[in-house]
Amino acid sequence: MNAQLARAMGKNTASVDGAMEKLLAPSPDLPETVRKAMRYSLFAGGKRLRPTLVLEAAECCGLNASKALKTAAALEMIHTYSLIHDDLPAMDDDDLRRGKPTNHTVFGEAMAILAGDGLLTKAFEAAAENAADLKLKGREAAELIRLIARGAGAEGMVGGQVADLAAEGLSKRLSKSAAAKILKTVHRRKTGALIVASLDAGAVLAGASQAKRQALRSYGDCVGLAFQIADDVLDVVGDKKKMGKRGSDRDNDKLTYAALYGVDGARAKARSLVEKAHAHLQPFGSRASVLHELADYIIERDK
Amino acid sequence: MNAQLARAMGKNTASVDGAMEKLLAPSPDLPETVRKAMRYSLFAGGKRLRPTLVLEAAECCGLNASKALKTAAALEMIHTYSLIHDDLPAMDDDDLRRGKPTNHTVFGEAMAILAGDGLLTKAFEAAAENAADLKLKGREAAELIRLIARGAGAEGMVGGQVADLAAEGLSKRLSKSAAAKILKTVHRRKTGALIVASLDAGAVLAGASQAKRQALRSYGDCVGLAFQIADDVLDVVGDKKKMGKRGSDRDNDKLTYAALYGVDGARAKARSLVEKAHAHLQPFGSRASVLHELADYIIERDK
Repeated sequence: MNAQLARAMGKNTASVDGAMEKLLAPSPDLPETVRKAMRYSLFAGGKRLRPTLVLEAAECCGLNASKALKTAAALEMIHTYSLIHDDLPAMDDDDLRRGKPTNHTVFGEAMAILAGDGLLTKAFEAAAENAADLKLKGREAAELIRLIARGAGAEGMVGGQVADLAAEGLSKRLSKSAAAKILKTVHRRKTGALIVASLDAGAVLAGASQAKRQALRSYGDCVGLAFQIADDVLDVVGDKKKMGKRGSDRDNDKLTYAALYGVDGARAKARSLVEKAHAHLQPFGSRASVLHELADYIIERDK
Repeated sequence: MNAQLARAMGKNTASVDGAMEKLLAPSPDLPETVRKAMRYSLFAGGKRLRPTLVLEAAECCGLNASKALKTAAALEMIHTYSLIHDDLPAMDDDDLRRGKPTNHTVFGEAMAILAGDGLLTKAFEAAAENAADLKLKGREAAELIRLIARGAGAEGMVGGQVADLAAEGLSKRLSKSAAAKILKTVHRRKTGALIVASLDAGAVLAGASQAKRQALRSYGDCVGLAFQIADDVLDVVGDKKKMGKRGSDRDNDKLTYAALYGVDGARAKARSLVEKAHAHLQPFGSRASVLHELADYIIERDK
């Protein structure tokens, strides 16, 4: 990661972490046990990619990032809830995440399910508060919530997880083109949908035009897919200790880009997507410098 | 249930079921597997209490019920997701709900977790669409989402489930007054918070005054607690086959009103709460007739 991107990510992380601390501050209404479980995974060393996308998209569309913090926090809470639920014994059954014991390993399965539910719900509260704070018009406030729900829900991220479960073990039985199609659908939903929603949420907070929203969504679609391909590659070649999880995708014989195209082929695909991502940022000029760097970082991080 | 209430509930149920059918219609974006799992529990014979509260509260405040259907559907989707997650092996581990196999029994644990996540998320999408359809002002749209999230989340229903898990097995070790206090907190959150949110959501959709919102919330607080007490009583004296679940609360030696005050004492408490509920409806005159009847029904249904 170059110095400018590292600085921007560091600044965004500090701001969003502050917002999340406030949203999950101790309160007589919030049972301490579930608050601890929610915070444990929220502050477990995530890179705050989605919040950064919210904040940078807002800046691209002329809104100061400090006005988009609660929505940035919302997208990170949704991402975190999805990790907690994905790690459950009934799902991927992972004991480690980013080198730390997973939520259910520490707090038990019941609490992990509830902590996930609590984070998902809190996310909508936070985004609604952001809309109220900014005095968004009714249509914009409703659109903010709607687009986040679509990105996170059964048509988006949840649907991606469903498609991923369904694809398990299919790799041996499918033609390469059929496998490639399924893989794209899975990844577009599982990772891409929430990344696209993050960018779009920042744009809507800023009152951006449909054209600007679409440009940012297209950028998100490309980097989202590139991100997942790079993840597949990292899973094969990366330092597993650094990633902090076991190489469970490979162990389960899951459908991955690396398995389908080989490491070099997958890397080439990711590079081509990142080039397209850059092109979509053209309308924003120098305001999009952090988003440009983020796109490059996605494919460089496995080096 | 008397004829007028039965007619009103039947009409509301038909309208809300129609709205939910549309919200979960087949779509290329929505994987069929998770759509089936979501629909299975949504259309498993629930009485549509929460949607009815949304619609009747809207009517009380001068909005035609047909304008509040998506939010009514949202509250039922949140209620249903909570049942799916509560029934999971890691939580209450129930095989039957309303006489039918529970979601995870039919679709597996992973799909049940995801179907619940999908319903919770879809609920916010539906409520946001309702706000947009009604052209609510930004402040009202944000308040609608915020209040639903507060009622459903870690400060509300999720927090109630957490407190309920924590209270398990405590009944033998606590003084009666300490147990009563915990029990009230658990129930106020676990059942009450979403009932209060249902009423408040209907009021906010109708653009109601703070005073009317507060009156409906107070009504909801009373009927919510009365409902849970009546449930405890039903669990002890009711026909288990009719309830369609095993008497698991009693089997687990859980803290219940029936255990704490005895069946007669618990019934008296519920009756007193229902009287208070009636009083809170005074500002709405004859518009509140269904809500009056609902309050009575809650304590009469165990006869």
